[in-house]
Amino acid sequence: MADLPAPLDPAEALSRAAEAAPLLAALPRARRAAAMVAAADALQAAGDELIPIGARETGLPTARLTGELRRTAVQLRLLADVAADGTALDVRLDEADPGFALGPRPDLRRTRVPLGPALVFAAGNFPFAFSVAGGDTAAALAAGCPVVVKAHPGHPELSRRTAAIVAGALAAAGLPTASLQLIEGEEAGVAALRDPRTAVASFTGSVRGGQALAAIAAGRARPIPFYGELGSVNPVFVTAAAAAERGEAIADGFVASVSGSAGQLCTKPGFLLVPEGHGLDDRIAEAAGAVAGQRLLSAPISAGYASRRDEILGADGVRVLADGGVEVGADGVAVATPTVVAIGLGALVSGREHLLDEAFGPLSVVVTVPRGTPLTAAAALFPGVLAAGVHLGAAERGEPDDAVRDLVAALTASAGRVLFDGWPTGVAVTPAMQHGGPWPSTTADATSVGTDAIGRYQRAVAYQDAPAWLLPDELRDGADVPQALSPAGASAEWGARFR
Amino acid sequence: MADLPAPLDPAEALSRAAEAAPLLAALPRARRAAAMVAAADALQAAGDELIPIGARETGLPTARLTGELRRTAVQLRLLADVAADGTALDVRLDEADPGFALGPRPDLRRTRVPLGPALVFAAGNFPFAFSVAGGDTAAALAAGCPVVVKAHPGHPELSRRTAAIVAGALAAAGLPTASLQLIEGEEAGVAALRDPRTAVASFTGSVRGGQALAAIAAGRARPIPFYGELGSVNPVFVTAAAAAERGEAIADGFVASVSGSAGQLCTKPGFLLVPEGHGLDDRIAEAAGAVAGQRLLSAPISAGYASRRDEILGADGVRVLADGGVEVGADGVAVATPTVVAIGLGALVSGREHLLDEAFGPLSVVVTVPRGTPLTAAAALFPGVLAAGVHLGAAERGEPDDAVRDLVAALTASAGRVLFDGWPTGVAVTPAMQHGGPWPSTTADATSVGTDAIGRYQRAVAYQDAPAWLLPDELRDGADVPQALSPAGASAEWGARFR
Repeated sequence: MADLPAPLDPAEALSRAAEAAPLLAALPRARRAAAMVAAADALQAAGDELIPIGARETGLPTARLTGELRRTAVQLRLLADVAADGTALDVRLDEADPGFALGPRPDLRRTRVPLGPALVFAAGNFPFAFSVAGGDTAAALAAGCPVVVKAHPGHPELSRRTAAIVAGALAAAGLPTASLQLIEGEEAGVAALRDPRTAVASFTGSVRGGQALAAIAAGRARPIPFYGELGSVNPVFVTAAAAAERGEAIADGFVASVSGSAGQLCTKPGFLLVPEGHGLDDRIAEAAGAVAGQRLLSAPISAGYASRRDEILGADGVRVLADGGVEVGADGVAVATPTVVAIGLGALVSGREHLLDEAFGPLSVVVTVPRGTPLTAAAALFPGVLAAGVHLGAAERGEPDDAVRDLVAALTASAGRVLFDGWPTGVAVTPAMQHGGPWPSTTADATSVGTDAIGRYQRAVAYQDAPAWLLPDELRDGADVPQALSPAGASAEWGARFR
Repeated sequence: MADLPAPLDPAEALSRAAEAAPLLAALPRARRAAAMVAAADALQAAGDELIPIGARETGLPTARLTGELRRTAVQLRLLADVAADGTALDVRLDEADPGFALGPRPDLRRTRVPLGPALVFAAGNFPFAFSVAGGDTAAALAAGCPVVVKAHPGHPELSRRTAAIVAGALAAAGLPTASLQLIEGEEAGVAALRDPRTAVASFTGSVRGGQALAAIAAGRARPIPFYGELGSVNPVFVTAAAAAERGEAIADGFVASVSGSAGQLCTKPGFLLVPEGHGLDDRIAEAAGAVAGQRLLSAPISAGYASRRDEILGADGVRVLADGGVEVGADGVAVATPTVVAIGLGALVSGREHLLDEAFGPLSVVVTVPRGTPLTAAAALFPGVLAAGVHLGAAERGEPDDAVRDLVAALTASAGRVLFDGWPTGVAVTPAMQHGGPWPSTTADATSVGTDAIGRYQRAVAYQDAPAWLLPDELRDGADVPQALSPAGASAEWGARFR
């Protein structure tokens, strides 16, 4: 493929990124935004070329990839707007105040600046939306950081073509040529993470991989922030009322959420907690049996899924509701249909060591909670998840209920997103999204989806008594960005209303 | 001292904090704010008792401690207001949108919740403002986290009395009794940091101590965020024009900033960079010679300062401008007057290994920059500092100047705060303050002073399609807090203005 750029040496990539960083940071925000929109346009225009490559390399259906490419372009456009409008700069202005309670207060103006070269480890399960031009890249570019993407080995050709198209569009729109670069291979990724010029890194993948990379980032001579989105089992709780009122619809929705993209989503519901005697076993089995076999993403994922599935099927107290097969082909890649098992809460608690880790693929566990045991008792099994769901009965939705309140409080303590009467798969790309929760779902408090994702690539800087001409545009009086003004003399009043 | 509470076992403290955490989180924010104001009042009312204890234990002058106690109370009041007004919750509301570009968008509402038990390592150099009831404690309480303070060994009696007074006031105002607890000793601090119930930790102290604690926090089975404010040398740059226009005032201000609190401040200017031939040596020597001897905080700090001072005085190319003594008393605590040395930029670069680390105490280094070498050339020597200063001439203040612009760009890349025509000591407690910069000045992007300090003790949670009665107050329609609304249908417009 003569038209594909050769993968870069990581040191060379970081050297070029470090040179590009101050240039990119100094460009007007609107210029950066325009380049990101141009990149989104170029990406969508190349859909006919890219989608077939993605389908061949990942086995994902064309319809899914088409939607994902659209989402990826929308993410770039949304974050272009965030880059331009200045909200994410969190501008704060203190007026000078000679009468301040603690002595004369200077003129102080705070904004957020790009951290510098960002290293993005691409994911395998979203070859567009969490890969070369995905959410992390969009957020880092919006912040003003040049990006070095470590390609995922699952879709190398798609990664190179995407990088060529997006980097080309960014450069044609006037950004430094090193604003987006691609490196390949685990060794190159680790070398880039150790490179002193790398200022921040983000990762989407397994707990084990993320933990290893987080340790490298923390152990550098100059540690850097590392944002890992790791494993999550996303439990969904069904109250007795909900099961009674619309159990069959819940069973169908559950199977659809478990089996979409062959269960290879970080938000797949790994556990469904239902009151004992729910009577939905047959419906779940039927729905699961109606799902056609789907190819898994790769040979390593197929092997991991098959072995994890065996481990779960062999655990004490596990009963099979739907025995989806895993047929491994000559290339090591499996075709799978959904496997759903059931277990009692007590057996799950005893077998927690083997049962509670994520199973990446179309498998989920239905947990029956004994009558009389509150659903909340099961919540502590899941201390850190991206999302947790609750299905409520109509009366519970309508008015306060102590058991529901306790359950939601417990889930709030362990999840980044708590959702109702729906499924955790499907993550809206919006300002209010939170895609990140307590360990091990993520390594740090942050979101990797939505507008707040930009914050991971910035840090705050305050300017004290600076001449106006030296201030960044957004800190000047009356700049066209949201500015939070601290009124003069406020300190004398602080807390007064509570005395 | 029978009336002092016995120091707690760390496991017992964390057990009580973990029980208190959900109770504290569930209290109305105004209730938490009122309790913090009550604590501020109680602290100030106890000034006549506390200040003499602090003076005896730390050797800091009464005037300084009086001001610091006032600042500590103001911090509590400011953060009480932040707790109550809801700005720091960063509330974001997405309306449901069936016509959203990427498929139906749910109703999504995001707020920030307390992380849980917070471990605060108190500092030795601010026995009120960065100790038991200091900025970290105020921020954590404002976020809704119970606090376990690891006392600094430099002021044990003051720590116990402060804890008793503040914990008593918080409990009397209706907060859980374990909202503020004290533990003592290095071993207890490390055990608390390893305790699985600890959710976040913050620290103010040395690079070495902070690095060791950061590694413990990162190496836990369940890693937690660790916010360390470590060492900083806070360079101040003087342009030729500023030196010519008001060199003597700068020399005097420099010595005052270096010698205040005997130089034991994290914002002490450790380096003054001036153009060669500045002619201020005598004025600096004279100003330094006029400063009376001051007792250092403790025997370990005295020993550390004396040895660091010897190392600097013995380095190649160092010339003494003011030879402040260090007289160590029988108790190991020294009395010191300011030591100021001079060195050429070239010699500093060659001796950087020995010269660039912080000297904690009343010592600073004047660096002469050869005529023709831009000041910017020296900026790269200081890659991570809390603050950096620039003194400008009147013309440079008035209109754009490329050399100044380049210098400020370089300092923006390495400092949390860039200040003009002043000194880094003196940190305003306000919304726009940023007290935290690149490594090694801090371990993570955050501020430990000002209203944004609260963010270190919170994480974001989104509620999707939740019944109104289950939402936290601040997420309900029309709640009395700032709410950022995402308009429906926006995605179709994203980026459109840049196409």
